[in-house]
Amino acid sequence: MKKKPLILVTNDDGISAPGIRALIAVMKQIGEVVVVAPDSPQSATGHSITINNTLFINKVTMDGDIEQEYSCSGTPVDSVKVAVHEILKCKPDLCVSGINHGSNSSINVIYSGTMSAAVEAGMEGIPAIGFSLSDYDWNADFEPTKTFIKKIALEVLKNGLPEGVILNVNFPKLKESEIKGIKICRQAKAVWEERFDKRTNPQGKDYYWLTGEFINKDNGEDTDEWALAHGYVSIVPVQFDLTAYHAIQQLNNWKLNNT
Amino acid sequence: MKKKPLILVTNDDGISAPGIRALIAVMKQIGEVVVVAPDSPQSATGHSITINNTLFINKVTMDGDIEQEYSCSGTPVDSVKVAVHEILKCKPDLCVSGINHGSNSSINVIYSGTMSAAVEAGMEGIPAIGFSLSDYDWNADFEPTKTFIKKIALEVLKNGLPEGVILNVNFPKLKESEIKGIKICRQAKAVWEERFDKRTNPQGKDYYWLTGEFINKDNGEDTDEWALAHGYVSIVPVQFDLTAYHAIQQLNNWKLNNT
Repeated sequence: MKKKPLILVTNDDGISAPGIRALIAVMKQIGEVVVVAPDSPQSATGHSITINNTLFINKVTMDGDIEQEYSCSGTPVDSVKVAVHEILKCKPDLCVSGINHGSNSSINVIYSGTMSAAVEAGMEGIPAIGFSLSDYDWNADFEPTKTFIKKIALEVLKNGLPEGVILNVNFPKLKESEIKGIKICRQAKAVWEERFDKRTNPQGKDYYWLTGEFINKDNGEDTDEWALAHGYVSIVPVQFDLTAYHAIQQLNNWKLNNT
Repeated sequence: MKKKPLILVTNDDGISAPGIRALIAVMKQIGEVVVVAPDSPQSATGHSITINNTLFINKVTMDGDIEQEYSCSGTPVDSVKVAVHEILKCKPDLCVSGINHGSNSSINVIYSGTMSAAVEAGMEGIPAIGFSLSDYDWNADFEPTKTFIKKIALEVLKNGLPEGVILNVNFPKLKESEIKGIKICRQAKAVWEERFDKRTNPQGKDYYWLTGEFINKDNGEDTDEWALAHGYVSIVPVQFDLTAYHAIQQLNNWKLNNT
């Protein structure tokens, strides 16, 4: 009998978030699951790692079926590093991150702890997928995502992923019967228009909360934003080679070495 | 007389780091400088932003010549957002980040607070450059970088940058006379091979320090690692559209919508 694939599960909302529990439930159907996830919410920590502080790892038993479940005091990326190099001491067959409580489509990918964990696994050469649901509610309904997650994970286990590529999967907030299918997309061009909510603390000192509005600047029907708005699950293949190859020739024309 | 360009200076080593003071000194020669930088070291914070905590902004006077200098309690990316949307309430003509104490070449770009600040400015449509010196010493000699920084900044102010492109500039640890010139490069394929340094605290609990070794897996002569090792200043054009376009067709062959 073929050995079950070893699957590392992580997230950025913290190990007790309903989203990761839903993801664990699906992964238990297809492989041997190891969970290593932050012990507290780590949304929007991007690709942050802990180099100026210590890391604590605790064995936990949130899911009685899983032999190896650990919380980590660091970021999502720390959790992946700890899992691979300290806990497993080997590379799992798959790393899945999420299910994030909230969208990681378009430009959100760059702020996302969920996606950064998946990207870190991809950098290690591990096939990796980040899953996010466009619903920020802690009690969001993750049931409609499960069939799709299983299908996508099985395809990745079967086919592998191109070198240097990670999948960013986003779900619309819909019932399963309302979801039209899966679309492979590009990242939509979008921005956050920030606003700072200024307040005064009891000591009379001003402080700020970061807030803002998401603005989609891209009507392309091949984008993740279009897919999500039209009832599809979006998959964007993401890479960590950030080189803007198309700009190299233009910069070479600048004659920067003339004196 | 043409108005002097408005230049936003930030970094990730904190507002008092020698690296940012060197960068400010160069920028004062070419424009009106506004400084908004983290009040404490924020290395390796990547594209982290502060959404679960408050932000404090303090006007400081570290450089008597500069009217607008502020420290921010958040990350490098927070500092850029605060600068543009709360302090300036307009977009500067240029944003420069650094000079980082340590290399941000190859895969380091993805962990780097210095580069994430520049990328955030780029996302706002501001021409942006991150500068880093391959020397982690707090008392590193930044003098050899200054002529190059001035030249690169003036070229960006003159030509602008292609849409969605930010420059990642790295300097070798050499005397100015030893530097052979500037090379436009691609990001070398490299990884960090992590190791966790396990220790025990006075209460008997295990904790870890993240450590590791940088492994360059790419001998290409068009890479930033090659340029730096051969005495050149490297410039990699960096983008924040993370879509792996080359993988889209392959994923479309997966028939994910078959039932």
